[in-house]
Amino acid sequence: MNNSAIGMFDSGIGGLTVYRALKSVLPEESVIYLGDTARLPYGSKSAASITRFSEENTSFLLGFGVKLVVVACNSSSAHAVHYLRQHFKVPVVGVIEPGAMAAAAMPGKRIGIIGTNATVASGAYEKAIHELRREVEIVSHACPLFVPLVEEGWLDHPATRLVAAEYLAPLRQAQIETLVLGCTHYPLLRSIIEEYMGTAVRLVDSAAALAAEVKRLLAVMNLSTSESTAGSDSFFVTDFPERFQRVGEIFLDRKIPEVSLAQLPAGGKNAVIS
Amino acid sequence: MNNSAIGMFDSGIGGLTVYRALKSVLPEESVIYLGDTARLPYGSKSAASITRFSEENTSFLLGFGVKLVVVACNSSSAHAVHYLRQHFKVPVVGVIEPGAMAAAAMPGKRIGIIGTNATVASGAYEKAIHELRREVEIVSHACPLFVPLVEEGWLDHPATRLVAAEYLAPLRQAQIETLVLGCTHYPLLRSIIEEYMGTAVRLVDSAAALAAEVKRLLAVMNLSTSESTAGSDSFFVTDFPERFQRVGEIFLDRKIPEVSLAQLPAGGKNAVIS
Repeated sequence: MNNSAIGMFDSGIGGLTVYRALKSVLPEESVIYLGDTARLPYGSKSAASITRFSEENTSFLLGFGVKLVVVACNSSSAHAVHYLRQHFKVPVVGVIEPGAMAAAAMPGKRIGIIGTNATVASGAYEKAIHELRREVEIVSHACPLFVPLVEEGWLDHPATRLVAAEYLAPLRQAQIETLVLGCTHYPLLRSIIEEYMGTAVRLVDSAAALAAEVKRLLAVMNLSTSESTAGSDSFFVTDFPERFQRVGEIFLDRKIPEVSLAQLPAGGKNAVIS
Repeated sequence: MNNSAIGMFDSGIGGLTVYRALKSVLPEESVIYLGDTARLPYGSKSAASITRFSEENTSFLLGFGVKLVVVACNSSSAHAVHYLRQHFKVPVVGVIEPGAMAAAAMPGKRIGIIGTNATVASGAYEKAIHELRREVEIVSHACPLFVPLVEEGWLDHPATRLVAAEYLAPLRQAQIETLVLGCTHYPLLRSIIEEYMGTAVRLVDSAAALAAEVKRLLAVMNLSTSESTAGSDSFFVTDFPERFQRVGEIFLDRKIPEVSLAQLPAGGKNAVIS
């Protein structure tokens, strides 16, 4: 079991920021990555759909005998992690809890959260942070245009600056001291966000927090790989492998050698939208 | 059969501009509208996925015994209409052919096309226009950020102006005389597009052209309704009826009284992504 891969899924390509963070602390672990590019984005979908998609993604990864499942997508983490833990035996780690822990550990009393509509509507970060520190004030704001701007590659574009200024104004006004980047795409807008918020505001990237959490969990559960050489990784998507390879370079700063088309399990009740 | 409804599907909410155009020329016809909001957007997906989704949407509509299927989504029209005509007996009308006819009928020799990545990559408008007028020069450009900007309701926002200026620059430079709005969302950006392109450029909205085509087809096939009172319409979505109702108002300028959740047929080979 120890030398089995870690499974990771995301709504698409943004999870590569989480993959990257994970591999930087656990280079010897192998990763099987699934991007659900046929149904992306998740951030504008309902909790019921996000949960169903997440269940199908997890079933796919379990077909490879993975030892742990990482939910890289914030929208899935916010809505489906609890459900996945109830329905599967494999340990499931989402990005919300580690991100909330990192944010709660920061000094100051005012924390901002930005994310997709689904993540912000869930209130999952607020809940997780308040469980750790009750007295903290939290301001959250959905930023639905950030994902398409990143996917268009406009990381340093005047239009992106204007959009950022509009979304972030209430957070600056609230004088937050820490800002949680509650979506896998947002770390790519770090410099534009810092420029507007000022460098005194600490940015929390859940990906780094999750990577540390996974490393700790593997050690605690005695599931770390015994390999000392670099792990081998596989990439699957439910649509458009070529686009994933191309846009993936924005996220990884390197080419992805091979991306395969995934066949999701068409399971009973879950094959039908209900 | 004559008093059966017209079926119409779209990737989500944008098709309401087509619905609106259709109802304005055929108020007495009943319409069953399906928005595939669980899998939207189609414009960034592959031809294979768009075709599969379109087949499932059509099967759903046929369950209501519709007399004709309107493909309101440009990305579906570009990739799936031919396939749907081969696989179903019901008449299938997409937006590309009527839009191309309207554009080809305009004076001038330079036509611009804007649409999603999928529509522009298909070359469907170019092909359809060139079949009618070989000598016309065509310049096309994908505008992937227009859809999320419209869905955010930023129809008159400085960021939308900046994005439009960037996307439309090559078309202005090419001195096009006619511009096809090759996506159901774009008519809502008409004033920003006109502002940048100048009022001398004629904007072609495929929705109006499709509505005229459907009216003509119903007459030719002797399938017009015998009702003289207003038709009754039903709205279905595959996810998030509340959001469809809310954002739908941007498109219709009125409330949508009721939106139901659709159960798509989970059919044999098509239930599995392959």
